[in-house]
Amino acid sequence: MTDIEAMLKKAGISVGDTISIESGSRNMKLTGELMPRTENNKSDIIVIKLKNGYNTGIRYTSDMRFEKIAQGKKEFTFPERAEKHAVEKKPYIQLLYTGGTIGSKVDYKTGGVYMLLKPSELLYEVPELEGIANIEVKQLFNIASEDMSYLEWQEISKHVAEALNSGKHGVVVTTGTDTMHYISAALSFMLQGLNAPVVITGAQRSSDRGSSDAFLNLACAAELAAYSDIAEVGICMHASSSDSKCAFIRGTHARKMHTSRRDAFRAINDKPIAYVSKDLKIEYASGYKKIANQSKELKPLTGFERKVALVKAYPNSDPGIIDYYVGKGYKGIIIEGTGLGHTPVSVQHEGFSWLPQIKEAVEKGVVVGMTSQCIYGRVNSNVYRNLRLLSNAGAIYCEDMTPETAYVKLGWLLGNYDSEKAKELLGKNLVGEICNRSNYDEFMI
Amino acid sequence: MTDIEAMLKKAGISVGDTISIESGSRNMKLTGELMPRTENNKSDIIVIKLKNGYNTGIRYTSDMRFEKIAQGKKEFTFPERAEKHAVEKKPYIQLLYTGGTIGSKVDYKTGGVYMLLKPSELLYEVPELEGIANIEVKQLFNIASEDMSYLEWQEISKHVAEALNSGKHGVVVTTGTDTMHYISAALSFMLQGLNAPVVITGAQRSSDRGSSDAFLNLACAAELAAYSDIAEVGICMHASSSDSKCAFIRGTHARKMHTSRRDAFRAINDKPIAYVSKDLKIEYASGYKKIANQSKELKPLTGFERKVALVKAYPNSDPGIIDYYVGKGYKGIIIEGTGLGHTPVSVQHEGFSWLPQIKEAVEKGVVVGMTSQCIYGRVNSNVYRNLRLLSNAGAIYCEDMTPETAYVKLGWLLGNYDSEKAKELLGKNLVGEICNRSNYDEFMI
Repeated sequence: MTDIEAMLKKAGISVGDTISIESGSRNMKLTGELMPRTENNKSDIIVIKLKNGYNTGIRYTSDMRFEKIAQGKKEFTFPERAEKHAVEKKPYIQLLYTGGTIGSKVDYKTGGVYMLLKPSELLYEVPELEGIANIEVKQLFNIASEDMSYLEWQEISKHVAEALNSGKHGVVVTTGTDTMHYISAALSFMLQGLNAPVVITGAQRSSDRGSSDAFLNLACAAELAAYSDIAEVGICMHASSSDSKCAFIRGTHARKMHTSRRDAFRAINDKPIAYVSKDLKIEYASGYKKIANQSKELKPLTGFERKVALVKAYPNSDPGIIDYYVGKGYKGIIIEGTGLGHTPVSVQHEGFSWLPQIKEAVEKGVVVGMTSQCIYGRVNSNVYRNLRLLSNAGAIYCEDMTPETAYVKLGWLLGNYDSEKAKELLGKNLVGEICNRSNYDEFMI
Repeated sequence: MTDIEAMLKKAGISVGDTISIESGSRNMKLTGELMPRTENNKSDIIVIKLKNGYNTGIRYTSDMRFEKIAQGKKEFTFPERAEKHAVEKKPYIQLLYTGGTIGSKVDYKTGGVYMLLKPSELLYEVPELEGIANIEVKQLFNIASEDMSYLEWQEISKHVAEALNSGKHGVVVTTGTDTMHYISAALSFMLQGLNAPVVITGAQRSSDRGSSDAFLNLACAAELAAYSDIAEVGICMHASSSDSKCAFIRGTHARKMHTSRRDAFRAINDKPIAYVSKDLKIEYASGYKKIANQSKELKPLTGFERKVALVKAYPNSDPGIIDYYVGKGYKGIIIEGTGLGHTPVSVQHEGFSWLPQIKEAVEKGVVVGMTSQCIYGRVNSNVYRNLRLLSNAGAIYCEDMTPETAYVKLGWLLGNYDSEKAKELLGKNLVGEICNRSNYDEFMI
């Protein structure tokens, strides 16, 4: 045990605790969360995460005074799954690793969270996963989700199909959280005809933090992939801010609704398909597509048209933005309108109405879809005159799809079908992305 | 009593009830909500609102069979406010009418909701308001909120100041709901130094529907304007789906979160300032700016720069959109990024990263602000390398402001100050739009 370790032990301080460090000789006082030490255990550097999010390394000197201010969160403890299933009876699942916070550690040199684990390290960090299933880990990329494009979505889809066609019961895909709901929507469309659970998960806090959500998320995702009879793509993340259960949300109805909370992902205009408790019990919460007895080869349909835009309409907004995309040869535009699906239309001043531009885009063969920036609820072109003007101009009202799902759907449609077919299918339900009935209780859950 | 009225009475049917109408001779069966009859009470037309939102008029024939399927919602009943306050002691308030659903009725000719009331009709429809306060009603425009621009925001601000400077205790502004939170943010900035309650309200359902929220919203708004000691701009709308109370939400923290629910407006990264119950009791829920004893003349600062854009970043998005706005001479751009405030930055493929465009825009003097499409939570440029790259390029991280509030703020800043000053003030709190601390319990309330 090094000096530092002995000193911390004496002060009753563990990794994850909030502590203060005071040094008279260096006229310094710092407060933060104690981070785990890295490879070089004999180093005399102590790393704490400051309130502003930065990590800082401090060289230990013997005059330092350490005080524990608050107990750190206890890490999630895995249930003894191995006892429940004999090793030889455990299902086989695939874990596709793509990057993101779940595989990241603090980079103690720069103070940021960026150094990404090798996938083998992920299983090494969470050895308990092996108790749940026989897991084959494959690294596809090492990309933060904000840097993922449809080219990666296509790759992931192909690997999911390959794993399932080779007999795996299900697949876990770990990704960054920022665009996880775009990814889940893309996989939902690309993997039509799916006959197995495809569970996307990740973490809001890196796995070397005491408060990381990585462990529960991974465990619940593995459980769903190995044992559930769900034949859909979904997102499995914390259902509440505590480490008590995860929600499995349909891939076309999920949305990241908070920048940092562990329970940031929510079902929009839908209920979660299932919950998984921390003792790995699956509770099915609403209707879902079940695995069929007759399984056939999964052939992903991965075409995607990049020239589709997602555009927000707001007061004073420039309708010329539509011309810009039409001029660049875009084939589709999803508008994030206001309320029931409005843009400025009957404005009393010159140059504010979007109606002429939308009309022209439609006439030129661009598929224009309308969604709502309210996020919750359904667009409806029947209620007001302005709505009917937009609808008559050819805008397709996208029912209860989020703007993000409508964008991914239109990109996928135009990547696989011609414009007429895309137009016809945009407002029709294909994989559960459109619910025919709006349920009043699906707001803010 | 006409034939129709007698027949409806006999069948126990009232306005607002869901009914079915069957006619053998016309081989017709329709179901919908019975609407009130218009001016021409002797007409033989019955109007019902169909499930798809359309109203349809049906000529009454004696072979028709009517059946009541469900009881309509009972309209909100006003408390006997007049008894509480002698007329001569009631405060004076101003009601500024601008259009929107609250003043609209069904147009029985076209079947849409568009015919707008005269403001005098609004008080005639809700005579109980006179029991709360001495109300002077003024019509400024007759515009749906999706068609409002900053030119109308400026007009409203001037009229609010005029009313308050002439001695009114407070002001109620009725607007459409689609962009109500943009309007409330604009008034918050334009009316800095405010020393009275400015209460924006409206309705999600038109006032001739049994389920209209117009009555409770108007009553609670009038109560706040007449009796509260709040010196802020806010939105007063239903707090739940029932007619039990309204929430008063700070103007810079409100957002329409549902396309159709009566309780669509929510406080984002904030708690409501107050609730008003249906018996018009005000319960203050969180800290707010109070009316000061010393009141001075309110001078609105109404400058607004139209050349400010709100742009969404998403997977595969075209970074050329930044060049487009820079080329058009835009002075400011608010980016709706992902998660903690990301755009694609370190993408492996050509033409996906937004970093070069953002750098160039900043170098050309454009103010670039970063917000999050998560809506809830705070952006933070410290946590990941990609974030620091964007921050180093000059993007200003807009703390816990919604994209909409950040957009309105930047338009207002650039309309009143030079770019340097705007840049300096964008991330600083001016009127309560930025909270220094994020409260964990301000999610999905």
